Amino acid sequence: MSKPQILISNDDGIHAPGILALIEAALEFGEVTVVAPDSAQSGMGHAISIAKPLRIYKEALPHALTGYAINGTPADCVKLATGVIMEQTPDLILSGVNHGANSSVSAIYSGTMSAAREGSLQGIPSVGFSLLNYSHEADMSTAIAAARAVIGTCLEQGLAPGACLNVNIPDLPLAELKGYHITRHAMGRWIEEFAEREDPYGRKYYWLTGSFSSDDIVKGTDVWALENGYVSVAPMTRDMTDYPNLEAFQDWKF
Amino acid sequence: MSKPQILISNDDGIHAPGILALIEAALEFGEVTVVAPDSAQSGMGHAISIAKPLRIYKEALPHALTGYAINGTPADCVKLATGVIMEQTPDLILSGVNHGANSSVSAIYSGTMSAAREGSLQGIPSVGFSLLNYSHEADMSTAIAAARAVIGTCLEQGLAPGACLNVNIPDLPLAELKGYHITRHAMGRWIEEFAEREDPYGRKYYWLTGSFSSDDIVKGTDVWALENGYVSVAPMTRDMTDYPNLEAFQDWKF
Repeated sequence: MSKPQILISNDDGIHAPGILALIEAALEFGEVTVVAPDSAQSGMGHAISIAKPLRIYKEALPHALTGYAINGTPADCVKLATGVIMEQTPDLILSGVNHGANSSVSAIYSGTMSAAREGSLQGIPSVGFSLLNYSHEADMSTAIAAARAVIGTCLEQGLAPGACLNVNIPDLPLAELKGYHITRHAMGRWIEEFAEREDPYGRKYYWLTGSFSSDDIVKGTDVWALENGYVSVAPMTRDMTDYPNLEAFQDWKF
Repeated sequence: MSKPQILISNDDGIHAPGILALIEAALEFGEVTVVAPDSAQSGMGHAISIAKPLRIYKEALPHALTGYAINGTPADCVKLATGVIMEQTPDLILSGVNHGANSSVSAIYSGTMSAAREGSLQGIPSVGFSLLNYSHEADMSTAIAAARAVIGTCLEQGLAPGACLNVNIPDLPLAELKGYHITRHAMGRWIEEFAEREDPYGRKYYWLTGSFSSDDIVKGTDVWALENGYVSVAPMTRDMTDYPNLEAFQDWKF
């Protein structure tokens, strides 16, 4: 049997340490193709480029791999990878390792998860990985080990077409990792605070900042798992329908 | 009782015909504040601006309204509106009217729906509107009438905190509209085709194009309702967990 074709993307850019960690983890499982943004795309949500032309640049990567850098978003990268660059449809799409958490509602804003979700929308099993450390100098050894474990299990169990997993990894030495939990996304929200500044011409501008707030950090959620030293593996949907409330709206008259 | 505070945003930009139509529809129901991107932001998904400072520009709008234009994404607009611009939390957030459909999986890519979803993430009832006509010269009279009907019902019934509705409107004369359907998002996908071009220097570039494909256009879905002349009102979730498949993953060992 031929080796699985694995597509790797991310949102921190093709030369970010996190994507190199994911390449390390994936290489033993299959043939790796890397298609990633040419610059950082954090917070890009599921953006796609419809108003500008996209370009593909070949770039050298470790392990004698050729990477494809794209002047676009993570979702663009997956679209170009499957539509133009790769000769066959990948068996698995991996995104990350993101520098920083993508748990709870952050999955909505996340460029990392948009690459995985784009794969899922195309019917390709996809997994996004995030490490709970924003620094580009973070120790990636636990992330590499966790990614290996998850990739191995996904290939062994057969992640279904269109399935998508949101994997978040605590920033702990491997020996302190407690294990893995299948989780749901905790409900919560970002409480925005805007840092107001003034430019040299007296005009105001604002930096978006904020802190995460949740009253839903209970066992079974991703945030609970992470706070207790577990890798969180949260199955993520591509169906935006609010099913629990669908029935209640049926009586509404317009 | 004081009039409801209504925040209006969109993704086509603060001077797009669609947002003017939505202002027309909303004015009779409450006090309107308009905070929208200073340029077109179609396909921006749920992107937020974390790497650049945001600016707020006041701009004159019809009905002697002052609008606030932002150099950011639709989600940025809602964040700045509730965090900086508005004195009180809005009772209702409206986004659109988008020039073009946002049914099925397009809801994921849609900047229009990201403004509504950002409101929903903040616990504010939110509705996004889209007309099935991409032209900025489209006749907005049916969209205005449909938006009035939906806004009226939402205020009357009391759309729950955090609820989000994805409203798509057929491009039909009002007299030919069949009515309204509460729907789920049809499952489907965009089949990408990239138009390959060459620049004057012999370098290739790609335009993203594609066509929508679905084998799920059955009664009860948004796409079915639209194809049959109904306004589609699809409740949209902010919880990304794949609940139907959550249990099956519990056996996985990593």
